[in-house]
Amino acid sequence: MTVRMQELEHLKEMLLKMAALVEAAIRDSVQSLVERDSDLARRVIEEDRKINTYDVHIDEEGVRLLALKQPMGKDLRFITTAMKITTDLERIADNAVNIAERALELNLEPILKPYIDIPRMSRIAQGMVRDTINAFVNEDVKLAKDVIMRDDSVDDLNEQVWNELVLIMTRDSSTVSRAVKISYVSKYLERIADHATNIAEEVIYMVEGKIIRHMLPDEI
Amino acid sequence: MTVRMQELEHLKEMLLKMAALVEAAIRDSVQSLVERDSDLARRVIEEDRKINTYDVHIDEEGVRLLALKQPMGKDLRFITTAMKITTDLERIADNAVNIAERALELNLEPILKPYIDIPRMSRIAQGMVRDTINAFVNEDVKLAKDVIMRDDSVDDLNEQVWNELVLIMTRDSSTVSRAVKISYVSKYLERIADHATNIAEEVIYMVEGKIIRHMLPDEI
Repeated sequence: MTVRMQELEHLKEMLLKMAALVEAAIRDSVQSLVERDSDLARRVIEEDRKINTYDVHIDEEGVRLLALKQPMGKDLRFITTAMKITTDLERIADNAVNIAERALELNLEPILKPYIDIPRMSRIAQGMVRDTINAFVNEDVKLAKDVIMRDDSVDDLNEQVWNELVLIMTRDSSTVSRAVKISYVSKYLERIADHATNIAEEVIYMVEGKIIRHMLPDEI
Repeated sequence: MTVRMQELEHLKEMLLKMAALVEAAIRDSVQSLVERDSDLARRVIEEDRKINTYDVHIDEEGVRLLALKQPMGKDLRFITTAMKITTDLERIADNAVNIAERALELNLEPILKPYIDIPRMSRIAQGMVRDTINAFVNEDVKLAKDVIMRDDSVDDLNEQVWNELVLIMTRDSSTVSRAVKISYVSKYLERIADHATNIAEEVIYMVEGKIIRHMLPDEI
């Protein structure tokens, strides 16, 4: 028995829809912080249920295809990779929920400073999520490698945000509680980028069979 | 064709060995911080290669069994769960490496204060990793639920460490850089506990078919 093309297409479609929701969750969570929009933050938290439902459906569809169609080779790897990817997407969404939770807290306090690097990190992270899923559905190794390369800029921005917040806290101790919360947001975005990178590594592994996730950057 | 018991046993055995290495990595990384033992920290970073090798082997063995044995029902779920668990174990080890890296930095500076809550978090996290893998190999739902319950105490300790560090930074701004690094360590341990919880949820899902990972604590 072989896995019909149509069924793999359905799996891809569900992952694309899930990824679109996850990307929107990242965007909205950061927007709820930057524009101090607590209603939007609450919506992000509420919408997470939908993303969790996709996670469960994709996982069950994967197991169903493995059981009933007993796929081989490429199709088999495609399905097990999809099942790993949905876990990463679900955890990315959890990080967006965490950002929304910090936004709800920060929106109750005076603004510490305008947000510049955090929206930038968010845009890069959203692009990484979108492209890493596109890399998966199109088996595009070049795009997956490009996603991995972008992870460094998010790490650098996170480092920059931290250094700046440490300076602010050092100069004025009344800022510590807010600065710590903002540093959390930066850390959540860094983790989102890490998950996108993990997905990209899985995609390369699926296509090339290379264990890229344990190689050094210059070996890639 | 059915998956021979022997092959599932081999998969279990590899996961148990990998989990033992991961547990040691957590223990040693925190010890390298508490006892200011930078040699030990470097050893943790070095040993991570071994853990990565297990990750790859378990993943490949999983795909091999799915392809050649075309397992059904319980065996199928067992193998796909093992493949998800190895990803979590590998990421737990990455967090131990992160702790060792912060230890290398902190060991070069004067001690901020004796570590009390962090070794406590580490012990809980190690126990969670050990028990969650035992829950998997023995399909022990009760033990998996117990692991999930312990996650709250790690979250509480992380919160406590943060609050204390915020106070220290507020009182004396010269402490900020060190305090921030220690807060990172606390956050890494919290993330390790989260991964152990994720594994426990997968185990319950495997055994009971319940989507526990998207339920509220009081629904469990």
